[in-house]
Amino acid sequence: MEVFEDIHGLRTFIKRIKENKKDIGLVPTMGSLHEGHVALIRKCKSLSNISVVSIFVNPTQFGPKEDFNQYPRDLGGDLKICAMEGVDVVFCPSKEGMYHNNFRTIVKVEGLSEVLCGTFRPGHFDGMVTVVLKLFLIVSPDRSFFGEKDYQQLVIIKQMVKDLNIPVSIHSVETQREEDGLAFSTRNRYLSYTERTLALSIYSALLEGKRMFIAGNVSPVMIYRVARDKLVSSGLKNIDYISLVEPNTLITPNKAYTMCRLLIAAKIGSNRLIDNIAI
Amino acid sequence: MEVFEDIHGLRTFIKRIKENKKDIGLVPTMGSLHEGHVALIRKCKSLSNISVVSIFVNPTQFGPKEDFNQYPRDLGGDLKICAMEGVDVVFCPSKEGMYHNNFRTIVKVEGLSEVLCGTFRPGHFDGMVTVVLKLFLIVSPDRSFFGEKDYQQLVIIKQMVKDLNIPVSIHSVETQREEDGLAFSTRNRYLSYTERTLALSIYSALLEGKRMFIAGNVSPVMIYRVARDKLVSSGLKNIDYISLVEPNTLITPNKAYTMCRLLIAAKIGSNRLIDNIAI
Repeated sequence: MEVFEDIHGLRTFIKRIKENKKDIGLVPTMGSLHEGHVALIRKCKSLSNISVVSIFVNPTQFGPKEDFNQYPRDLGGDLKICAMEGVDVVFCPSKEGMYHNNFRTIVKVEGLSEVLCGTFRPGHFDGMVTVVLKLFLIVSPDRSFFGEKDYQQLVIIKQMVKDLNIPVSIHSVETQREEDGLAFSTRNRYLSYTERTLALSIYSALLEGKRMFIAGNVSPVMIYRVARDKLVSSGLKNIDYISLVEPNTLITPNKAYTMCRLLIAAKIGSNRLIDNIAI
Repeated sequence: MEVFEDIHGLRTFIKRIKENKKDIGLVPTMGSLHEGHVALIRKCKSLSNISVVSIFVNPTQFGPKEDFNQYPRDLGGDLKICAMEGVDVVFCPSKEGMYHNNFRTIVKVEGLSEVLCGTFRPGHFDGMVTVVLKLFLIVSPDRSFFGEKDYQQLVIIKQMVKDLNIPVSIHSVETQREEDGLAFSTRNRYLSYTERTLALSIYSALLEGKRMFIAGNVSPVMIYRVARDKLVSSGLKNIDYISLVEPNTLITPNKAYTMCRLLIAAKIGSNRLIDNIAI
């Protein structure tokens, strides 16, 4: 496994790979790898000659009051997981390597970045797509892999790729869950036992909403209500949003239909958790 | 000479070129080619195996009250010039080919795009860098060529390329002038005889400013004044700006120094002309 910290070294390596007509898959991560990332890596490996994992906690996607400094870092552990999974290349640049002093460019996907999580995390998606675009331009992958857990992120990246004619195909991998249904997330490790129990109600509420849809001809408002009731009755009151949206526009439709996405974001203690399912 | 209107056809062609290990130079234009463009094409040809000229009047860099509809188009004439100059590939996409119905992504180079021309043309540089990035991602050139006449554009593109790690090198070509000193510009053709005479005072004012600098230890304000006096005494009163700026930051320095850029934008009738020189 090759590990690169500097862009130039990685690019030289990538150039040689391309000359040998091998194709490249990229899994962009912020490290602290868990089962969700591992599923992405496995899908990447199954479809690509060369698998690249990037590990970079991107400062520009954290708000001034968010947990950039507290966000967990475990490069040693991450490298072990990558090696075990047979990753070919790990790219773990420094903050200074990615953002020079006089950095000024920002990418915005308008209309999709200000809703849902964007309402609560202004600027988050601008920082995220900008760094993803940089990674695409550094690694020049043929395909890249993102989890459905960050559903809004996935939709925004697909839109950017289409709009800017980026020559990469975006693959999504379904949300990986612990045995009790909790979606794997880097921030789960900070949950106390009580908080973790409370966190389970998010997935229960999503399933409740889905059951309501399957049961019959129901409106988005009815699905919203049953999910909200489930959260509140479980004791989870700090809800950022519960939204049923069209899969590509993130707009709430007049009528629920298959493939719509039900999304929930809620705070539990100081942790903000998100989850979603297709209904 | 190959002419492509659709992105897919061009990409297939480019892929073959890359497989043959030939490098690619791109000259992005809005068509209506003049001597300024020809100088870019010649520089491109001298440095690249394969020269690509794009011709696209980009709607997103025109303001709602600007001259997008009136902007001259002459694809037939442009193709003749490209063929005469030995261009290998012309890419002339349609508006619909470049911007699908649901286009949402915008690139911003903050701090450089709101000053000088950006003050008078809000959003212009966002539209410009977004389409240039799209062209880079479609053509994947090794190098690209821009004229110094659009000096702010050149600085902003260099900044974007650096910030986003775009694997292209940016080359600039000095402003081409008619015998009397007027910078070649697509919009010159709209000038009446009287307006054209008036337009000459822009270059005279730039030279006056430069002479002032060469004469001795002078401040930006003194250079500004002598240039302004020249314009006003020539009868040119509709001045958008006269600015002496640092070459990369576009900030006015405390003290003029070699390589600083003196820039002028002024309206003559309904035409807005820009010009600049290094002092």
